Formats: sequence, C-alpha cells, structure tokens
Amino acid sequence: MHTRVGGQVPAGDRRAGQDSAGCAGARCGAGAPLGLCRPRLCAAMAEEKPLTVVTCTAPVNIAVIKYWGKRDEELILPINSSLSVTLHQDQLKTTTTAAISRDFKEDRLWLNGEEADVGHPRLQSCLREMRRLARKRRGGSAGAAAPLSLAYKVHVASVNNFPTAAGLASSAAGYACLVHTLARLYGVEGELSEVARQGSGSACRSMLGGFAQWLMGERPDGKDSIAQQVAPEMHWPELRVLILVVSAEKKPVGSTAGMQTSVDTSPLLKHRAEAVVPERMAQMIQFIRQRDFEGFGQLTMKDSNQFHATCLDTFPPIFYLNDVSRRIIALAHRFNAHHGKTKVAYTFDAGPNAVVFTLADTVDEFVEVVKGSFPPESNGDQFLKGLPAGPASLSDELLSTVVLEPVPGAIRYILLTKPGPGPQPLDDPNLHLLGADGLPRSSA
Amino acid sequence: MHTRVGGQVPAGDRRAGQDSAGCAGARCGAGAPLGLCRPRLCAAMAEEKPLTVVTCTAPVNIAVIKYWGKRDEELILPINSSLSVTLHQDQLKTTTTAAISRDFKEDRLWLNGEEADVGHPRLQSCLREMRRLARKRRGGSAGAAAPLSLAYKVHVASVNNFPTAAGLASSAAGYACLVHTLARLYGVEGELSEVARQGSGSACRSMLGGFAQWLMGERPDGKDSIAQQVAPEMHWPELRVLILVVSAEKKPVGSTAGMQTSVDTSPLLKHRAEAVVPERMAQMIQFIRQRDFEGFGQLTMKDSNQFHATCLDTFPPIFYLNDVSRRIIALAHRFNAHHGKTKVAYTFDAGPNAVVFTLADTVDEFVEVVKGSFPPESNGDQFLKGLPAGPASLSDELLSTVVLEPVPGAIRYILLTKPGPGPQPLDDPNLHLLGADGLPRSSA
Repeated sequence: MHTRVGGQVPAGDRRAGQDSAGCAGARCGAGAPLGLCRPRLCAAMAEEKPLTVVTCTAPVNIAVIKYWGKRDEELILPINSSLSVTLHQDQLKTTTTAAISRDFKEDRLWLNGEEADVGHPRLQSCLREMRRLARKRRGGSAGAAAPLSLAYKVHVASVNNFPTAAGLASSAAGYACLVHTLARLYGVEGELSEVARQGSGSACRSMLGGFAQWLMGERPDGKDSIAQQVAPEMHWPELRVLILVVSAEKKPVGSTAGMQTSVDTSPLLKHRAEAVVPERMAQMIQFIRQRDFEGFGQLTMKDSNQFHATCLDTFPPIFYLNDVSRRIIALAHRFNAHHGKTKVAYTFDAGPNAVVFTLADTVDEFVEVVKGSFPPESNGDQFLKGLPAGPASLSDELLSTVVLEPVPGAIRYILLTKPGPGPQPLDDPNLHLLGADGLPRSSA
Repeated sequence: MHTRVGGQVPAGDRRAGQDSAGCAGARCGAGAPLGLCRPRLCAAMAEEKPLTVVTCTAPVNIAVIKYWGKRDEELILPINSSLSVTLHQDQLKTTTTAAISRDFKEDRLWLNGEEADVGHPRLQSCLREMRRLARKRRGGSAGAAAPLSLAYKVHVASVNNFPTAAGLASSAAGYACLVHTLARLYGVEGELSEVARQGSGSACRSMLGGFAQWLMGERPDGKDSIAQQVAPEMHWPELRVLILVVSAEKKPVGSTAGMQTSVDTSPLLKHRAEAVVPERMAQMIQFIRQRDFEGFGQLTMKDSNQFHATCLDTFPPIFYLNDVSRRIIALAHRFNAHHGKTKVAYTFDAGPNAVVFTLADTVDEFVEVVKGSFPPESNGDQFLKGLPAGPASLSDELLSTVVLEPVPGAIRYILLTKPGPGPQPLDDPNLHLLGADGLPRSSA
C-alpha cells in the first residue's frame, strides 16, 4: 500500500490504481505526487516534506521449464518459453519500498541496506517504462497537462530475506517487486509482466502466483512476451518445495553473461530452444493441470538436466552444479527407485542449490533421508527452516539402498515451502524500508 | 610375434601372415596349429605339449571427436563417426599373449593376472570372428579340408600398464590387442578394425597409429564401419599429451550402459550425432592435416564438453566430470587466456581424468602450472611420469592470474606422452604372459 508518511494515512485504507483517478493534479496542486495523494492531505504536504510511500513484497519463482538465452538483449526477449512455480512469500520474498517526493534531488537505490547504482540500465528500463505508463495513463484519463509529479525523483529500497546470487533467482523477485511497487506508487494497472521482464527475464513470472508460463512471443517489440498464469497457487495444495541450500557462495558466472555466451556458442541450446522446449511446455502444462506428479517430476528433472547440459556445451563451459549437487541428484534417483515411482524431483538454477518438489505425504521421510545423507554439523536444530516437518523413521531397506556414504555438513539447511501467491502490498507502515526522511530506516 | 614355446623358435624370426601359406596342415600333420608352425618343429610337438604363442601390445587412444551411442548394439555400430589420437605405447599399453594348443581343454582368459569370464559376449564375438576369418582364409588359399587346429582352444592373458576403468579406454587397447594378437596367431590379414569394433567400439581406432577416424558407416552389416588413419604418428611431432590422473576410482556408470541410456533418453545426443558431428569431423581432419593447434585445441575442448553435456541430458543423468575435473577445465581456460591463444586443450572420456594436448614448447610451463595448482602431497618426485619435462619458472603475472586457489593432492600424477604407433608384436619370448604350460607366468 502507498502511505503518506507525512500525513498519517491509515495503512491499508486505499489501493493504488483505485484512487488515482479521483486525485487529479489540479485538485492537489502542483506539489501533489501523481494523484496518489488524497485531497484532504494535500494541504499538509508543503510543510511536512510530504512523501508518498508504497511497500510491497514479491515472490521467488523456480522454473521447471528453464529459460536460458535471449533473442533480444535490450528488451529481454527469450529464445524459448518457460514455466515456473511461484514460491510462497512466507519463506522467500523480496520487500521493496518506493517513495517519491518533490524534495528528492535524485533517484536513489538501496539493496539490502547498501546504496547501489541507480543507473543500472535494467533498473532504468523499468523506471522509464513505469513512468511512461503512468504518463500514458494520466494522459489517457485526464487528457490534459503533463503531471509535474512524474518528474519527481524516486527512492527505492529493497531487501531479500535470503542470500542473493546463490542461484535462487533473487533478481526475479527483486524486479517483480520493484515493478509492482512502482505500479502502485504511480497508479498504473494492467499488463506489468512485460515491464518486469525488462528488468530480469524471469521476473515476469514472479508477477503471478501459482504456476506461471512466460510466453516467448514473436513480436520484435516484445509486447507478446508476457507471463500468464497456468494455475493458481491453491490448484495443487499437496505440492511442497524443499530448497537444499548447498552453499551461499557467489555463483561463478552470472546468468546474464552466461546465457548470452550459451546463445553464441552452444549448438545444443539452439536445438533445445527450437525443437525440444515447445513440446515440453505443452506437456508440463498438462501435467500441472492434471496434478500428475509422476509426469511433472520427471519432466522437471529432465529439463533441469538439459539446461545444465547446454551450460556445459557453452564455450568456455559453465558449471553451476558441484559435487554436492550431483550427490543430491543421485540421492533423488535412488529415493525414487526405492519407491518405484517419482516421489521427489530436483531442479537447479544458476547455482548449486537444489530445489526439490514433492508431495505433502513424502516430506517427512525425505527430510529424514536428507538429514541422514548430509548430517548437519553444527546447526542440527536449525537444519529445517520454513514450514515444519514431522518425524519419520526410515526402513532398514531404505537406509541401506538410499542413504549411502553420508557427507556431513554438505548441505547447510533445508528450507521447506510451497507454491504461493504473486506480489502483495504490505499494509503496515511500520514495515516501510524508507523512513519519513526518504532514507533507509536504521532498523530496516 | 608368435613363438613355439615347446620348440625354441628364435624370437622374431617369422611374422604371422607371412609364413602360414607355407605351412599347410598336411605338412605339419593333424596336430599343427593353423599353419603357424614351421615344418622342422612339427615332429617335436606331440612330446612337448606344443604351444603356439603370440604376444603383442596395443595402444590407448583418446577421442577428440567423441563416440557415444550405438545404432546397433550387437555389431557395435555408432550413431556418429569419431576421431582419436593414438597414444604412445612407451607410456600406455595393453600387452596380450594368446596361445593355442591341442592340449587345452577350454578357452580361458586372464585379465591383469586374474582369471576372467571367457564367455563374455563381446570377447566371444571377437574370437568367433577371428576364427571365421582364419577359416575363410584357409579355405580360400588351400580350398580343401577344414583345418582341425581351428577347433583348438585358446588361452589369452592380457595386462594393462595403467589402471583399468578409470576413463582411460582400457577396453579399447584391450580389444585392439586381442584382435591383433589373434590375427597373428591365426595368420589373418586385412581389415581387422571391424573385428576390434565388435569387442569395443573405440577399439577399432586403436588398431591404427597416429590420428585415426572411425567412419560410422551406413551398411546394416557394419562392413563399412571401420577405422582409417587420418595421419601417421610422426605427422605432428611437436604434439604432446598430458594425462592428469585425478582418481583411479572405478567409474560410476560404465560407458556401455551409459551410452545406451543416452541414446534412449537424450534429445540432445540425437541432434549432436546428426547435425553437429559430421561438420566437426571434417573440421578436425583439416586442423590435424594443417597442424593447426588453435583449431584442433578449441574443437577438442568443445567436443569433450558436448559429450559430457549429452551425458547430463541423459535420464537419469550421467556425470563423469567431478569438481577436480572442472578445476582443470577452468585452469586450462585461464592458461589460454593468459597467453591470448589456445596453448592447451583438455578432453575427458568416461571418467574424471583429464587428457591435455599441448605442443612441446609449452609442456614445461604447463607442468609447472599444474604442480602449482594441485601441489603434490606425498609423491613429489614421482608426480611426473612418462616423458621427461624440464624446469620452468612462472612469471608473477601468470602465477597471479592462472594459479589460483591451489588444491593439494587433487591430482595424483601427470603422465606425459605423445602420439604413437598402432599395435606391435613383442619379439622377446621372455615377455610372453603365458608360460610353456599355457598358464600365466608367476612373474607376469
């Protein structure tokens, strides 16, 4: 929600995009920010260095049909469609506060408490695009003078509740959150996945809850390269997601640079994008609609492996999986073989951490198997984070055929979560990351 | 050379395939084995449990365009052509002794001193095929009665001077050696790569020295799926080969099972075989003919990476590279980047060991770089085996940009070798692996 810090707007009383039409620039005076103020507050603005503030959260998503490679680097248009599961924000989220004020001298950005370069081209793309949409919207509805407040500078602060650059698609949640927050700040509605896509490709999928596909589109201008929901988060209530955090080291090759090298050098990637993915997209949508875990899990694993195969076919080759990742893969296959069906399915992004899909009835046992295979070293009581799991006793046969050669400490912790909704407003003004002065709160 | 143990034939005085026409069965009596005896020895055979013995050595080869996947499992017909460098037998070889005697009760086999199952289908394929060719040859030249000696049982002993199943293509050298040895024993000449292929696909390339291609062929009977020499071993005298032995652990998935799973499950392997390899074969032959190390090295690395990519695209995925392999890959790319050109080129088979091609003028420096990156733990004086290397001092810039984060003990040793000739006879009867009793010598 957007909140006027200077004017004590009760949290949650209005929603961006619902009120802006009723707050035309002329009624607020020249100082009114973009019609987001409420008329009764306008008078107070000049004295109190008025600030319009909005805070939202946005989710991480994990692709089950992978995106790797752009056909247009400027607009971030992919060489193939992709499909992901949006993870629940109770466990993983980005929180972003955006504020505008006529007193701000320049656009500024803080990431995880540290001031960052606001001139980053992709951030600028999103800012420019959101301001353009706001201008268009105002122009369309009021049809008159350009709103001065669009020239106001913006302050943005963003934090993740998980380590960045560990292959957990932090940029996806980050840009989805930025775009969603700016949209509420500027009162912009409609198709926003296209804007988020220009920040980080996979961010467009984080604009939706549940199961989302990113259609690659065909148009050169990218207007049809957008995210669509395949199914909402409650479609498959038994689905669970375990993130096996192998390492929080910074990944060796960033995905942006990596995928472009792949496009330039990998013959296999080109074939994958053209000949393999279209069929897999259709299959995956079917599996999800039918809640077919066998099909969903097998295809998820195959597509993860094929993505990493194209990384290896890149020159110089790119490696995101390490020996621990490979042990997790082998463990998952042994676990499924033991059960005679697909009970767990791994997928890996641009880092060594595993994301494992399973169903609620398998969680307890698999957590126990992971504990046995990668015995926690120091943080035994904190090994499982997120949703709770119950105790499970493993059969002797499972222990002897699945839990082989334990590697203590190789997995730092497990985060248990499930599919979740798309970006959400944060109504509590105490949760804004920027204070009344428009700077990060010391407590943030 | 074949030698009659019972009859004191001077070593090296005759060559199989040259003498057999002059030793027809009738002249030796019913007991003469396959015409390999010399008439003056025939009389002694009955009393002395005569034995005809041949010992040969055969080389390892390392593919630079990889073979992975069969279109016919029985005949071992590949889904794509491949190309390899034959390594010098001064460093790596299989030695095989084959003996026949009318006193042998059954075919027997010893591998590295241990008796092994002679009924292995592929071994039987080679034995059957060699006996068929021998029969055909006798039938063709003598045109008369079937030689009884073809029914004699054979004893075969084979040893490698390197660890088996460590991704060093021991089966290739093994089957090449078997077929070459049996050919000399039975006096068979002509196209033998087709027989070796039926033992182990890549064995057909070990039948030739220097640079050999294995043409995939088109015929269903495999008669055109044979090895051809691209260039002899002295064509590129500066070329050197370093084998970085990472581990002698047994590989997790054997290549026979692995490649068939790949054929069945990897969409990328099919594309590689059909659309990528044909062009690469032509390019690689050009690079070798022109002694173009830049082209040869780059394509060698790319093709190794693509092979391992198709392993990863297999389901369940197959991993042969481990974290040390990946460190070697990164090291090679840093080394080349430092020099601004391709000075070293890695390739990996079905195991973690790296095979690195380079030119003579780079050996000393690269060995020093490997020593610095993977400091020997206990065997510092034996770290480099095979051909000698000289001292080299590394520049500060090279040390600071190439030799990063040393991992002590990760490489067990380096074996330095170079391209070499095809299978060779061993003339010294003291080197036979089987004694006068047809059993492995205790000293073997």
